[in-house]
Amino acid sequence: MDVKAAVAFAAGKPLEVTTVQLQPPQAEEVLIEIKATGVCHTDAYTLSGKDPEGLFPAILGHEGAGVVVEVGKEVKSLKKGDRVIPLYTPECRQCEYCLSRKTNLCQAIRSTQGRGVMPDGTSRFSIDGQMLHHYMGTSTFANYTVLPEIAVAKIRDDAPFDKVCYIGCGVTTGIGAVIHTAKVEPGANVVVFGLGGIGLNVIQGARMVGANMIVGVDINPNKRELAEKFGMTHFVNPQEVEGDLVPYLVDLTKGGADYSFECIGNVNIMRQALECCHKGWGVSVIIGVAEAGAEISTRPFQLVTGRVWKGSAFGGARGRTDVPQIVDWYMEGKINIDDLITHTMPLEQINNAFDLMHKGESIRSVVTF
Amino acid sequence: MDVKAAVAFAAGKPLEVTTVQLQPPQAEEVLIEIKATGVCHTDAYTLSGKDPEGLFPAILGHEGAGVVVEVGKEVKSLKKGDRVIPLYTPECRQCEYCLSRKTNLCQAIRSTQGRGVMPDGTSRFSIDGQMLHHYMGTSTFANYTVLPEIAVAKIRDDAPFDKVCYIGCGVTTGIGAVIHTAKVEPGANVVVFGLGGIGLNVIQGARMVGANMIVGVDINPNKRELAEKFGMTHFVNPQEVEGDLVPYLVDLTKGGADYSFECIGNVNIMRQALECCHKGWGVSVIIGVAEAGAEISTRPFQLVTGRVWKGSAFGGARGRTDVPQIVDWYMEGKINIDDLITHTMPLEQINNAFDLMHKGESIRSVVTF
Repeated sequence: MDVKAAVAFAAGKPLEVTTVQLQPPQAEEVLIEIKATGVCHTDAYTLSGKDPEGLFPAILGHEGAGVVVEVGKEVKSLKKGDRVIPLYTPECRQCEYCLSRKTNLCQAIRSTQGRGVMPDGTSRFSIDGQMLHHYMGTSTFANYTVLPEIAVAKIRDDAPFDKVCYIGCGVTTGIGAVIHTAKVEPGANVVVFGLGGIGLNVIQGARMVGANMIVGVDINPNKRELAEKFGMTHFVNPQEVEGDLVPYLVDLTKGGADYSFECIGNVNIMRQALECCHKGWGVSVIIGVAEAGAEISTRPFQLVTGRVWKGSAFGGARGRTDVPQIVDWYMEGKINIDDLITHTMPLEQINNAFDLMHKGESIRSVVTF
Repeated sequence: MDVKAAVAFAAGKPLEVTTVQLQPPQAEEVLIEIKATGVCHTDAYTLSGKDPEGLFPAILGHEGAGVVVEVGKEVKSLKKGDRVIPLYTPECRQCEYCLSRKTNLCQAIRSTQGRGVMPDGTSRFSIDGQMLHHYMGTSTFANYTVLPEIAVAKIRDDAPFDKVCYIGCGVTTGIGAVIHTAKVEPGANVVVFGLGGIGLNVIQGARMVGANMIVGVDINPNKRELAEKFGMTHFVNPQEVEGDLVPYLVDLTKGGADYSFECIGNVNIMRQALECCHKGWGVSVIIGVAEAGAEISTRPFQLVTGRVWKGSAFGGARGRTDVPQIVDWYMEGKINIDDLITHTMPLEQINNAFDLMHKGESIRSVVTF
């Protein structure tokens, strides 16, 4: 079938909105009509050419929401008409990883997903006979896409596509890191480094679970107001702190953070995030993606005296199990997504979303179809 | 009272066995007759002068066992005749740390202990009117010593001093790291770096909790036999591995260690220990003490993909609660201490214990009084 898509033909070039061809879903796959998709830093990272695993030509996009329009003959958990969120981290519920109960990093289709193809090793997308790569297994920058059943979360029927699409990546990454990875408990003191979209979602996750202090750290004072609306109780601008930031934060939190979150992708800040944690039990969670080759470091004494260093991918959330729950929380008013979606545009203007992101003028731009 | 002690008058010098003076216990303190004490690498580290916090003159020793001979008037949990193990990590059960349920690092007397004095700021030891520092709050290289009540674990009356003294440090550090810090579960695959006393105790801890593979890594093939007796299932000599050690260990454990333990104190090996862990959930525990200023490093991707980096001090054990349990395990035959105590000697020969350690000829030397 013909599909309207924004194609990334080459690294460093703008996307081209055009018509591409989409093959029908195979036995264990579903055809989804994408109704809305967020534009995320990870899309920009790959488009820039810096992503060593980036493949071109490709249809980018991994933060979508839509409706099932056709299911393969082996599909059991989804039916035509279901509202869904595509998952770049699938949940097969049968692999060693899913069965471990310890991780959300289902490996069922990892190798083919990494090669930009479907589990059978081929792509469903093409243009004029030329194969187009899938991206993160989702390719939501198209009004129709095909996904494996295990990579689709069924959500409630009244969820608005142009808001809950953000749950496909950013919201779940931030809130999930609080709930699933760190398991922040009521009364905990939390420090969040970076008040972009991920940081704001960490903040509202911490508020939702009843954290005590929620300290936001950012060099941009303009981020303060919205962060406070999301639950930040204390704002720290490192450029206004006299002396070292770490002892300042330890002092502010009366001994250190029970939990800290790095939402930037800077290895030096990852170290500060660890070292501002409370002796004995502070847990620091790395969410940000550092540049290729960069390394974190600290003195082992930091760990021997009880701090824990860990990381979080997709918020530690199991897509089919936990994503629908986050949609419910949004619908119940427990979390705020509306204020994070600063721009909405049609697919034809998707390159504007990248421009807004690069200029720091958006939190999240959403493309609607 | 007059006490026989091995005094460390200065860094880098042998201990001098001589008579020193000991003041009676204060209200919340107890006088303990030390019956046996292990000689540990930490004593040697401080004696060498490399320990930046080392104080001289001092009475070293922190791995003792003995009998209460006198209690201060406020002491409630101990009485004359109790068998006890002195604790360099106390357990007051009232400070923020004890009440957190998240750490064993009681801070009740930390500052005075670090200054080599009792909680009232003075020392009980002196020689010819000159003050002698306490060491790690225990000073077990003396046939009598004074400790705060909160730094004494009461143990069963039939425990042999010359064996259970090792529970005062090494045994608890190794077994506790498995049980309390890592919480290794049955069926887990474990990799242990360094087959000295700590590594052997990690191994027997892993065996006790039902680990599956217990891989020992050491460049000394002579350590294999005893490690196997303690439960090691696979021995890896890095010098015999072609190519990189980390992928070799990942392959051997079919995906990586569920838990790894660094029992050496080398920051490069700490990195290997982390990186040989299983994607998604592998936990690496640093036990070894690195040289001052050395730093650990890795790519943050190691953590973002689910590995966890933590550390352990005194095996995460609460001294008064968990140490008596480990004594019970020894008495019940669940753990082996006898084969780890390779040498026993009187106090007069304590310098031999340091020589044996430096030559690598002992696992643990115990001084008996």
